[in-house]
Amino acid sequence: MKLYEKLADDMTEAVRRGVFAAGERILSVRQASQQHGVSIKTVLRAYALLESRGVVESRPQSGYFVRDTAARAARAAALDEPRLSGKPAAETAPVAAEVDVSRLVLSTLRSIRAHDAVPLGSPYPDPSLFPWRRINQYANAIARRSASWNLIDDLPPGNPELIRQIARRYAENGVPVDPGEIIITLGATEAINLSLQAVAKPGDTVAVESPTYYAMLHAIERLGMRAIEVATHPAHGIDIEALAQIIATQTIAACMVMPNFQNPLGFQMPDARKRQLVDLLAAHEIPVIENDVYQELYFGDARPSTLKNFDTKGLVLHCASFSKSLTASYRIGWAMPGRYRAQVEKLKFLNTLTTPSVPQVAVADYLKQGGYDRHLRHVRKVYRQQASIMTAMVRRFFPVGTRMSAPQGGYVLWVELPERVDSMRLYQAALARGITVGPGMMFSTRDDFRHFIRLNYSYPWTAQTEAALKTLGELVARMA
Amino acid sequence: MKLYEKLADDMTEAVRRGVFAAGERILSVRQASQQHGVSIKTVLRAYALLESRGVVESRPQSGYFVRDTAARAARAAALDEPRLSGKPAAETAPVAAEVDVSRLVLSTLRSIRAHDAVPLGSPYPDPSLFPWRRINQYANAIARRSASWNLIDDLPPGNPELIRQIARRYAENGVPVDPGEIIITLGATEAINLSLQAVAKPGDTVAVESPTYYAMLHAIERLGMRAIEVATHPAHGIDIEALAQIIATQTIAACMVMPNFQNPLGFQMPDARKRQLVDLLAAHEIPVIENDVYQELYFGDARPSTLKNFDTKGLVLHCASFSKSLTASYRIGWAMPGRYRAQVEKLKFLNTLTTPSVPQVAVADYLKQGGYDRHLRHVRKVYRQQASIMTAMVRRFFPVGTRMSAPQGGYVLWVELPERVDSMRLYQAALARGITVGPGMMFSTRDDFRHFIRLNYSYPWTAQTEAALKTLGELVARMA
Repeated sequence: MKLYEKLADDMTEAVRRGVFAAGERILSVRQASQQHGVSIKTVLRAYALLESRGVVESRPQSGYFVRDTAARAARAAALDEPRLSGKPAAETAPVAAEVDVSRLVLSTLRSIRAHDAVPLGSPYPDPSLFPWRRINQYANAIARRSASWNLIDDLPPGNPELIRQIARRYAENGVPVDPGEIIITLGATEAINLSLQAVAKPGDTVAVESPTYYAMLHAIERLGMRAIEVATHPAHGIDIEALAQIIATQTIAACMVMPNFQNPLGFQMPDARKRQLVDLLAAHEIPVIENDVYQELYFGDARPSTLKNFDTKGLVLHCASFSKSLTASYRIGWAMPGRYRAQVEKLKFLNTLTTPSVPQVAVADYLKQGGYDRHLRHVRKVYRQQASIMTAMVRRFFPVGTRMSAPQGGYVLWVELPERVDSMRLYQAALARGITVGPGMMFSTRDDFRHFIRLNYSYPWTAQTEAALKTLGELVARMA
Repeated sequence: MKLYEKLADDMTEAVRRGVFAAGERILSVRQASQQHGVSIKTVLRAYALLESRGVVESRPQSGYFVRDTAARAARAAALDEPRLSGKPAAETAPVAAEVDVSRLVLSTLRSIRAHDAVPLGSPYPDPSLFPWRRINQYANAIARRSASWNLIDDLPPGNPELIRQIARRYAENGVPVDPGEIIITLGATEAINLSLQAVAKPGDTVAVESPTYYAMLHAIERLGMRAIEVATHPAHGIDIEALAQIIATQTIAACMVMPNFQNPLGFQMPDARKRQLVDLLAAHEIPVIENDVYQELYFGDARPSTLKNFDTKGLVLHCASFSKSLTASYRIGWAMPGRYRAQVEKLKFLNTLTTPSVPQVAVADYLKQGGYDRHLRHVRKVYRQQASIMTAMVRRFFPVGTRMSAPQGGYVLWVELPERVDSMRLYQAALARGITVGPGMMFSTRDDFRHFIRLNYSYPWTAQTEAALKTLGELVARMA
């Protein structure tokens, strides 16, 4: 096969997979020449071939565009563009609600069997990307070199070397941290639970984003508190004005947010807004629980700031884990609870005594020696690519009226379906076809997200994934 | 060295180590002959030698007795004998108390560094007795044969094979159990916490033994409940009459007990009393949380019954773990919560999402293939022996007025010191000498056990242990 034929085939495949959507401009001749390392002449021949195949069309003075073969003029819009329907978001007065979403979440998770379905509904990253063997080698070496292991050695706050490694990593990324503040927990789940328990009591009202990651709702449910949902912009994060109004009229015991790559919206809150949020809460002495589990999964050039960067009063309880970036199976998370450190440490001791030792030391060893940064660079690249493929695919297969988030990191896409679509019905119909989606109702105590779904793009893109998305698009079109 | 000399030396050492206390009868000639596999004649020569050395004396028609060289006529008494002082136990009206013992417990545990002190104060069994390498080999094999591990596979209730193995073990020991009832937790700590949370709410009153294992108090403290302490007999367990009186006059949301080898008292509640307790609580529809972590560490011929054996209404929430019998580092526990199964499962999901997978599967593999019974037979024998040595040593070194529990299983001895001794002061003084003890105040919200300590006898008996007990005895004598 000639070089230009190979290039034409690759481009055809890219269009077929939706990397370039119908109506979109493909790479300029110069860009393509640079990117593929071929001559201008080869690109021109390839593009001519593509044109003759009817894949692209050239427009004078503009370049080459993917032919809109399906006449799908109305492509899916981004979530922060004005709604197609023109209907405004619900603007009812915010009311604190009792929380009971865990049953729905657990039954959804149960239906996701990683080995026998297309796990678009999974909240977890594809584990095959993780350096599983390597970490296990460390674990095995640790287990072998110690004749036994005494629980007493790793009482809270946790293994000292792991704590040091975590602190070092924050310091390298410009987040101010005192190692003495870190408490190792059983995943971020426990960190969030203990942090909330340290600052609020049963019956208290806690402000959360809307939509919010359901782990936040679970923490509130577990402790018998009430949630008040604050409008949250798909690109800028929680509406600080709206939060200020709520604080002015109600007693808010704590606030829980996910400023980086929020699940499900995927935004990265701009620094100025992070500072504004911290300042607002500090002015009212309201503690804020920051869930930063996706901190390492950014698509930009550098790790984003955290609320902790702007915290001067010790009111930020920062929670994170290795579950989304290294291994979920080891269940290693941590809290940096600011002025609430002593309470959180005590609660950790009461809740689960210690976090298992060998996993802690294995992760510490890996951080010291294992090439974490190289691994993360790879994961970020993969997720960024797969985010763009997934976005293109939804655009291609889903009907008019579909809108999407524009993830800045992480591995989930938030999709607003035409309003008549009930995502629980979609979930059931998809499940019957071996496909899962995350129904929008998991992310709120209200009914605002009934026509939303969350899609996981961490898994390698395959023909099966593509077929699944196509099926989903057809189901949605039928229900719309 | 001749055989009879060797035997005499061994016996001397046994007496020196307190296996036979001053004034006690040693083995009969026939018994010694059988036990040591030597002739009657050899034993007779050995005993003659012992007599000539002044170690034993023969009494006509009675046998050989250890000479009471120190003239310590008043030996330490068993806890269930009448008090030497004649002072009755406090008989004040029972009052529910707020609980805050975790600070004391955590600081005590912190001071116990397994590698640099004589850990008589440790609550944990000597890990060197556990088949650490073997379990780790299983863990490593599992990690190696799976390319990765998906969190979704082990959502609550937990790994199916582990659950099956646990159920099988109960069934073999005559405890009725439905595998569908078992929920894997992060150690018994989490099982107890979730069980309590499933049946009671903040502010409720929970009945506990007195003294009680502080994990029970921790669970109550964690949830902001109140504890009411019920008199507990050192050999028969919780005073059922006293409990009935409390139930008659107050609202009790739940009861928490440890019917087998209670920590710190070490009793095995007789079957009849277990049944009585279950019946009393069932009559009032009060759920009971049964902490059975020492179930495998019996000194008798067979595994004792559990409250579950007598439960007809699903009110027993049975909690246990492998931490005391196989490995503490893996943090594998479970709950069998009777009619509260759904709540406990949900709370598990909310609290820590999942218990790490590889440890679950490794323990399951070990249970299937690893010789758990052989391991346990060995551990039981060692603990039984060491219980008798520790008992003899306290008898030997501690002053008049000391009383002791008579453990029927487990690995702790509960020691009542002369009343003037403050065990917190003893704790401090011992710590300065590199010895730890468990101060009695950890086991109650009241002041009743200020002159008690708990001693751990799971560690191999060494000259250092003996010296430590001697030092403790001297400190106690000085403080008395």
